[in-house]
Amino acid sequence: MAKQPSLEISECPVARAMETIGERWSLLIIRDALDDIRRFSDFHKSLGLAKNILSSRLKLLVEIGVFEVHPAADGGAYKEYMLTERGRSVFPIVVALRQWGEQHLFEPGEVHSVLLDKAYGEPVTLIDVRSAHGSVLRPEDCYRRREVKQQPNERAL
Amino acid sequence: MAKQPSLEISECPVARAMETIGERWSLLIIRDALDDIRRFSDFHKSLGLAKNILSSRLKLLVEIGVFEVHPAADGGAYKEYMLTERGRSVFPIVVALRQWGEQHLFEPGEVHSVLLDKAYGEPVTLIDVRSAHGSVLRPEDCYRRREVKQQPNERAL
Repeated sequence: MAKQPSLEISECPVARAMETIGERWSLLIIRDALDDIRRFSDFHKSLGLAKNILSSRLKLLVEIGVFEVHPAADGGAYKEYMLTERGRSVFPIVVALRQWGEQHLFEPGEVHSVLLDKAYGEPVTLIDVRSAHGSVLRPEDCYRRREVKQQPNERAL
Repeated sequence: MAKQPSLEISECPVARAMETIGERWSLLIIRDALDDIRRFSDFHKSLGLAKNILSSRLKLLVEIGVFEVHPAADGGAYKEYMLTERGRSVFPIVVALRQWGEQHLFEPGEVHSVLLDKAYGEPVTLIDVRSAHGSVLRPEDCYRRREVKQQPNERAL
């Protein structure tokens, strides 16, 4: 059996991102938080997963800076899990997953949710990969280059 | 312990997408295929995961229409895993994961790959969520509505 490489130290940002937030429940927890769910009991009701798994995933997401824990906004006893900027910036990933699912995983006649913008009530545009000059790029239009990171993260891990 | 809901029949396209391609290795296999890797031995060399796991993930990805298996282009004995259009359309998801990783998971001085377009040699633009009118949308600018799917998938599952 091959040795499993650690994705956490990979030079590939896709691998590190999958290792950090790519677990199925973690991304669905972030999806719910983007829909304004903040409390343990509401995540539990929405996702229906075991409480111990939900608890461990929330703990991990706090540790990696996706959530901050705050006292309840209404002064109650419950704490709230609030997305940080790092957490909120997962939004395009969730929308790209949503759009792929909408396109490929529903049969005609099946019901699914669509994402609309509040200002116009119209569906958000399809996410695509674009050059700095605005043209849509296919995989074969791109290549990768190794670079040394210059700018600090918005928050150190 | 709460009953685990089946994400495959969820009305949420994010949940279905995660259930279908969201497994860590599955998305990294698709990432490699987008970089033109086509053979079992090359996926194995790139990912370093156990052969039985690689084999089961490739089988699943063929079953859900992300890959088609072809005879080797050079007439050799090895088969090749070619991305379908459904598989190629995972590209924006992989790029969104990449960009989140680049922004949040590397310290200054660490090396990572960046994605550039071949025509200009410039980094691809940051993926964001936009309205039909071109404005960048934050999570709180959006809402969801249930809809009945009208158009058939490009290929039935």
